[in-house]
Amino acid sequence: MYCVINQRMLKEEDASLGIRDLALLRGYGIFDFFRLSKGVPLFIDDHLDRFYAAAEKVRLDVPYTQQELKSRIGELLNLNEMPISGVRLLLTGGYTPDGFDPGHPNLVVTQEPISFPSTEKYTHGIKLITYEHLREMAHVKTINYMTGVWLRKKVIEENAYDVIYTYQNKVLELTRSNVFIVDSDNKIVTPKENVLMGITRKNLIRAIEADGGYTIEERDVSVNELVEAKEAFLTGTTKKVLPITQIDDKKIGGGQVGKVTNKMMTLFKKTESDYVESHE
Amino acid sequence: MYCVINQRMLKEEDASLGIRDLALLRGYGIFDFFRLSKGVPLFIDDHLDRFYAAAEKVRLDVPYTQQELKSRIGELLNLNEMPISGVRLLLTGGYTPDGFDPGHPNLVVTQEPISFPSTEKYTHGIKLITYEHLREMAHVKTINYMTGVWLRKKVIEENAYDVIYTYQNKVLELTRSNVFIVDSDNKIVTPKENVLMGITRKNLIRAIEADGGYTIEERDVSVNELVEAKEAFLTGTTKKVLPITQIDDKKIGGGQVGKVTNKMMTLFKKTESDYVESHE
Repeated sequence: MYCVINQRMLKEEDASLGIRDLALLRGYGIFDFFRLSKGVPLFIDDHLDRFYAAAEKVRLDVPYTQQELKSRIGELLNLNEMPISGVRLLLTGGYTPDGFDPGHPNLVVTQEPISFPSTEKYTHGIKLITYEHLREMAHVKTINYMTGVWLRKKVIEENAYDVIYTYQNKVLELTRSNVFIVDSDNKIVTPKENVLMGITRKNLIRAIEADGGYTIEERDVSVNELVEAKEAFLTGTTKKVLPITQIDDKKIGGGQVGKVTNKMMTLFKKTESDYVESHE
Repeated sequence: MYCVINQRMLKEEDASLGIRDLALLRGYGIFDFFRLSKGVPLFIDDHLDRFYAAAEKVRLDVPYTQQELKSRIGELLNLNEMPISGVRLLLTGGYTPDGFDPGHPNLVVTQEPISFPSTEKYTHGIKLITYEHLREMAHVKTINYMTGVWLRKKVIEENAYDVIYTYQNKVLELTRSNVFIVDSDNKIVTPKENVLMGITRKNLIRAIEADGGYTIEERDVSVNELVEAKEAFLTGTTKKVLPITQIDDKKIGGGQVGKVTNKMMTLFKKTESDYVESHE
């Protein structure tokens, strides 16, 4: 498997970063991750837009223009020939002169195998556990997942799929996914404050609006609203639309995958295949 | 300069980590940092105790016993022969199998030059700016300094030395140092909740208690108490005891370095030289 490190294209086993990189020493960096669908980089422009916006927010310069990086990714995909996979873009704080201040950012682009949740999870839904936590710079896709990784042990112990973060009685997001509920008015609702704006989230919202069958609202969701919701689901790059049927000890929608969630799974599938068809 | 990576001792220019390390991908890791004073690793056992405690908290195994690591550091110091320097211990989440779960931790030990604040800063004190922020896992020395590094631009723009974090009207700590004030009762006070327990902080507190000249209290400090304090100073491995004479636009102690702060600088100097003498 080939990867890109700054201006170089090289085999991943030969790829490394020096030990003075600020991502290693101070966790300073941003990233993005998209997947290929039938060889087509899904929503790549949305991901690149977000990556460049994140880089600007943390004041790191990407050593390519957005168009150049897109071309470079194209070369990488041609070399690796891996039609079902993920592409990770990482931009670090670079080699620090003093252990704290950023240097010239290092850009790393890797391609890697991906796995999707099992069919059973799509048909029966998943269990989440709640945890009170507001991610630092929640709107920026930084590499800081200290709390999320640390919680893996608890997730496994509680036989859950992931954690859903709550903060001051509001529902925020999962460690790497966004959450949607179907509320008592049959509206589809998703939080928009203090969360990362997911690309699957963005494209599903667009599709719901274009489809017109349901109303979508971006607003605060209370923890009580979540556990009392008719239905709940999550969105994510490698999860697509995945039903949530349990939060801690409380079943959602009677523990069954609901009608709206099933429609959303179908709607997203169509959105993805339309995108792939028009970009092949 | 030599460094240690896991079981190997090698030149720093040859040292690197692969790009699948969880510190790079998810900012997952812990570290510690101590300095040599006349060639003696200052308070090394305190630092090693804290490093091993942090590793345990984030569930990463150090690939050496504490005694073995201490010996290995001794070998490194002998090779590098650099009597005024810092030693950095870094333990990362290791090469991740799936982009999120930890692998076998990577241990990196490096030695590096250090610089102390200028004499002018010790005689006139420094300016800090306040920022509302509670560090994630504040009591663990993780590598997550996302907010601290990001704030460097503001620190420079405001002609300050560093940031002091406040949270819900309480004073916490600086980006890499602890804060002490002299309160209206002439007691020396330092926060103890939601802060990293600094080793300089610890040894200065011990010295104050042994000396008996002043009362030291570990308790919450309000933002108002800080800006109205008679004196304020910070402690840190490369800063020792450094006077604070301005917070945002407000002068502390009339903008002059106070009597108690001067005594603390002297007391810490003696503490350090006593340690060095008894460990040479």
